[in-house]
Amino acid sequence: MTLTGNLLIGQTPVTGSREAIHAIDPATGQALEPAYLGGTGEQVAQACALAWAAFDAYRETTLEQRAQFLETIATQVEALGDTLIDRAVAESGLPKARIQGERGRTCTQLRTFARVVRAGEWLDVRVDNAQPDRQPLPRADLRQRQVALGPVAVFGASNFPLAFSVAGGDTASALAAGCPVVVKAHSAHPGTSELVGQAVAQAVKLCGLPAGVFSLLYGSGREVGIALVSDPRIKAVGFTGSRSGGIALCQAAQARPEPIPVYAEMSSINPVFLFEAALQARGDALAQGFVASLTQGAGQFCTNPGLVIARQGPALQRFIDAACKHVRQATAQTMLTPGIFSAYQAGVGDLAENANARVAASGQAGQGPNQCQAQLFVTEAEAFLADPTLQAEVFGAASLVVACASDEQVRRVAEHLEGQLTATLQLDDADIDSARALLPTLERKAGRILVNGWPTGVEVCDAMVHGGPFPATSDARTTSVGTAAILRFLRPVCYQDFPDALLPQALKHGNPLQLRRLLDGKREG
Amino acid sequence: MTLTGNLLIGQTPVTGSREAIHAIDPATGQALEPAYLGGTGEQVAQACALAWAAFDAYRETTLEQRAQFLETIATQVEALGDTLIDRAVAESGLPKARIQGERGRTCTQLRTFARVVRAGEWLDVRVDNAQPDRQPLPRADLRQRQVALGPVAVFGASNFPLAFSVAGGDTASALAAGCPVVVKAHSAHPGTSELVGQAVAQAVKLCGLPAGVFSLLYGSGREVGIALVSDPRIKAVGFTGSRSGGIALCQAAQARPEPIPVYAEMSSINPVFLFEAALQARGDALAQGFVASLTQGAGQFCTNPGLVIARQGPALQRFIDAACKHVRQATAQTMLTPGIFSAYQAGVGDLAENANARVAASGQAGQGPNQCQAQLFVTEAEAFLADPTLQAEVFGAASLVVACASDEQVRRVAEHLEGQLTATLQLDDADIDSARALLPTLERKAGRILVNGWPTGVEVCDAMVHGGPFPATSDARTTSVGTAAILRFLRPVCYQDFPDALLPQALKHGNPLQLRRLLDGKREG
Repeated sequence: MTLTGNLLIGQTPVTGSREAIHAIDPATGQALEPAYLGGTGEQVAQACALAWAAFDAYRETTLEQRAQFLETIATQVEALGDTLIDRAVAESGLPKARIQGERGRTCTQLRTFARVVRAGEWLDVRVDNAQPDRQPLPRADLRQRQVALGPVAVFGASNFPLAFSVAGGDTASALAAGCPVVVKAHSAHPGTSELVGQAVAQAVKLCGLPAGVFSLLYGSGREVGIALVSDPRIKAVGFTGSRSGGIALCQAAQARPEPIPVYAEMSSINPVFLFEAALQARGDALAQGFVASLTQGAGQFCTNPGLVIARQGPALQRFIDAACKHVRQATAQTMLTPGIFSAYQAGVGDLAENANARVAASGQAGQGPNQCQAQLFVTEAEAFLADPTLQAEVFGAASLVVACASDEQVRRVAEHLEGQLTATLQLDDADIDSARALLPTLERKAGRILVNGWPTGVEVCDAMVHGGPFPATSDARTTSVGTAAILRFLRPVCYQDFPDALLPQALKHGNPLQLRRLLDGKREG
Repeated sequence: MTLTGNLLIGQTPVTGSREAIHAIDPATGQALEPAYLGGTGEQVAQACALAWAAFDAYRETTLEQRAQFLETIATQVEALGDTLIDRAVAESGLPKARIQGERGRTCTQLRTFARVVRAGEWLDVRVDNAQPDRQPLPRADLRQRQVALGPVAVFGASNFPLAFSVAGGDTASALAAGCPVVVKAHSAHPGTSELVGQAVAQAVKLCGLPAGVFSLLYGSGREVGIALVSDPRIKAVGFTGSRSGGIALCQAAQARPEPIPVYAEMSSINPVFLFEAALQARGDALAQGFVASLTQGAGQFCTNPGLVIARQGPALQRFIDAACKHVRQATAQTMLTPGIFSAYQAGVGDLAENANARVAASGQAGQGPNQCQAQLFVTEAEAFLADPTLQAEVFGAASLVVACASDEQVRRVAEHLEGQLTATLQLDDADIDSARALLPTLERKAGRILVNGWPTGVEVCDAMVHGGPFPATSDARTTSVGTAAILRFLRPVCYQDFPDALLPQALKHGNPLQLRRLLDGKREG
């Protein structure tokens, strides 16, 4: 595979004609070839038209066909070998081992959705058989299944150039649901995007699917993205990125003649609550674990622990002192892009200048461009409650400790929080009652609550929730990681008194797919 | 029970101080006592604060407690006896038998949700057990359940004063999910609303639940409704009504600092496709069934068949002639409100003056006020495709027949339709292939597709979908009728590495609720 700088409109490579983007190697500041010219409005429309043309056929492929397609994408991504790894490292500044791990996660994710598609539980088949003799009125035969929403626009994320990008979780779950996908590549890693895009397009071809099942677009500003979300043939949007970016897409989606759902995963500071007994018993270990989670990957995770909340006192002070020691030892790490680096610098600068917070420790300064220097800040609860800017996400390895005067103030700080992806509890047995008292608040605030772990590291499994109330996401009813992500791209349709010959396979009287249906109010065994 | 004109803020009757509404008996035009003064902004806020205070406790009531509460509401509504029936007849102009039937439907709906709550499938419990020895990294113990979204604002609908109103489907499904409910009563039936509201409040008291689980508000304009949707403690909205009303609520919900989901069921013209063999074989019977569905309840159903589509020719002409005969025999019926009557007159007037349509038949004119005179119009496909106003919903007993030159034109008309609650196919065996070719389009357009029935009559069951793409509803991913309606008011939360003592009942290791969990990727038997 060689890089061409081309968009992919279905199987057709096409050169854009809007402003070009170049990837930047953030470790050196050097621009990487080739240039990726932005897609025009016509090219966006062509990709959407092709996706629309593919939709009816693709959504009715068999479960086995769809599963094999997802598995073929995984195989094709793996076949890219070190070409992919090297390019992703160059475009992201991330270590090779991390990118290799992320490739594994990406391919496992695709194969996991293949398993989900085959199992067919997402079809949520419900059958209410006819009751012709019911009084006072007979009941019709009613059968429900889930169908795909339509073509989905997926926006690649900067911080997971594989797992949340061209063939990442949004794409995998949308394709699993039966939705064609048009990807807007993230401008930070166009080459990685092109390679993976070629792999997906090859899988489309190998599986004999309609060309429009997958397209890949580039664009330097917001024009391509807004044009994509505004196209009437797009029926849902998946996005991971900034709050301003997500809100702009939500507004574009709402402004359409036919509004559509947007699944935007936006901002979260992932509060960590340190309870008293745990803090007393193992403050040093907590400080070590906390700083490891905070600085991992230069803190560029949606679930980075950006806030620590605890009762003030000697135990908290020992934790802060130990955390400061670890932060000071933390080496600088290359951030993903110059833009992310400068936003981090600005966020850290705002906190440093904020009279309500003080710098507790700074990590080692880096050599070369785009080096993230870890930062730990401390504030008091009253200041935190009074100053909403202290809740702003600083994307990178910065965190703020909030010292509270009492358990009641801990609760007030928790209630004051915006919606979060995660909330973490560090507790020992003696803290169980305090934790229980806080749980109702945290259940209202977060999509995932952890005990005695750290929020970074998001498992791809059935029970995962990578979601949460606004502004963590635009739709708290969903998750963007884990198998439940497929449910975002479905809607129910009811078939009344259909002859068997017209019913879709999932609903036929003989249950040929052997699904466990909800049959006359009872779940089949 | 006597009518007081009071709002209910939890258990407390309160008099409003905004502009008063009076119910109007549409059969006589007479205003009915008492006056219902509109709620103030403060009263709206009080109801929301009380709902918020009740939320954490109510959402963690046991499944059995919640189910018994729903059943107690049903019992209390039934205990209102003829007081309720008489008032609902007076306020709606609907026949007594219809209101009695609707009361039965309302109570059955509440008891159905009690069954759903007890079964617990809506909790969608997913468990991924820890894998401490997994390589390269161990897996945590991850458990997911669904939790209630928060207090829900429910707007009563004009056309179902019981089944889609104070204790109707939205209220029943939100309460089932664990959400407190604040109802904005429809101004057409405040007395009916107060009676049912007293019954719900009595059930809250009998079941020992927090007072804020239910409140009831009145308001003459949009102020109360907009204030309710804008209150930060409201987390979702249920609405059945006009497109303009639903869109206004969606906009208010999106304009909040924290946007919330709105489930608005708005407008649908419910196309009926008559296929050739069916039309040849039983055109007379089809005409009779069609006009019966069209004129039932003065056509005041969301699923009223407002559009008929067929290939032109002698068979269609015979159908039209027969339908005209039945329409001309149709007696006038009292409409729900003077406002609905005048909107019907305006809609019918617009069609009558539209050069693209012609009046085929009119029903019998009525005596007295607010009498709906049935109307049948005819147009050709080219005119229908060119004139979007011909798709506008005329709420009442009016329908439009679209004559098409070919099967291809039938398909084009179908593709041209906006989103619908229902689509109906009248077909015989020889039509199966034609119907199959149209199905992909209809699956994209409608929430429910019927064969050889009529769309009016919406069963409350597991498989029902009363929903559909915009503008039929604001959220095609859901249904407002049937047991799946509970899913609208839930969001997933993941619990990671929780000690058993802190886990909610549904997620404990011993599975005390005996739920069929998705356990390590497999559904429990």
